[in-house]
Amino acid sequence: MAPATPPDSHADLLERPTFAHLATVRPDGAPQSNVMWFEYEDGVFRFTHTSARQKYRNIKQEPRVAFSILDPDEPYRFIEVRGTVTDIQPDPGAAYYQHLQERYDKPLPIKDADVRVIVTVTPEHYATKDA
Amino acid sequence: MAPATPPDSHADLLERPTFAHLATVRPDGAPQSNVMWFEYEDGVFRFTHTSARQKYRNIKQEPRVAFSILDPDEPYRFIEVRGTVTDIQPDPGAAYYQHLQERYDKPLPIKDADVRVIVTVTPEHYATKDA
Repeated sequence: MAPATPPDSHADLLERPTFAHLATVRPDGAPQSNVMWFEYEDGVFRFTHTSARQKYRNIKQEPRVAFSILDPDEPYRFIEVRGTVTDIQPDPGAAYYQHLQERYDKPLPIKDADVRVIVTVTPEHYATKDA
Repeated sequence: MAPATPPDSHADLLERPTFAHLATVRPDGAPQSNVMWFEYEDGVFRFTHTSARQKYRNIKQEPRVAFSILDPDEPYRFIEVRGTVTDIQPDPGAAYYQHLQERYDKPLPIKDADVRVIVTVTPEHYATKDA
C-alpha cells in the first residue's frame, strides 16, 4: 500500500523539528504514549529508538502505531497520524540518532549506540485540526 | 486502588492548561492519539468529550488509556501517564465543557451539548523527564 500523503495545510508540522506523541500498544493490550523525535522523509516517518525499552517490545508485537503533533506556536493546530511500523534497522554507531540530534539542535551524549535502532513508520491516515 | 500521586517536580504540568495527547486503543487493537483538554482535580483527570466519536467507542471497549503532556515552555520536560477510565457521565447542558473552555480561556460555540460527556481517568503510573 502506498503511504498516505499529508495534507499540505499541515506539512510544515512534519518538516519542522516538532515533537510526536507516539501511541503504542503494550503486550497486555493497554496503550502507552511517549514523546519522540522524528523525521519525515520520502513519505515515511523515522524515529530513533533503542531495543532496550518497553516501546520497542510494544512495536515488535503490535506494529500499528499512532501519533499526534501540536504546532508549538498555535496549540489548536495539530495533526494526528495513524500508521504501521514497516521496518526496524540497527543504527550502527548511532549515526541516525546523531542526525536527529542535529535536526533538533540538541547534542546529547550517546551511551547506547549498541542498542540504537531506526524505526520506520508508514503513514496510513491523517487527521488535522486548524486553529 | 488509590490513584497514583504525580511527582511534585511535574505537578505544574497538570495544573496549567496544557495539552494531553491521549492514547486509546481502537476496537481492532490499533492505537489512536488525540490532543485533548483536561483537568486534574482530587487525584483524577477529567476530559470533556462526546459520545459521537471514535475515541468514545474506544474507551467503552478498552478503558485503559495513556497520555503525555509536554511543557510548552520547555519541550524536553514532560510527563507520561497511564491509567484507566473509571467513570463516564453525561454533561447536562455542556456545563463541564464550558468549565474547561474557561480553564483554557477558549470560548467556543457549543453545538453538541446533547452528546457531551465527562470522562474520568484514574492515574496508575507516572513517568517524567526533565529538561
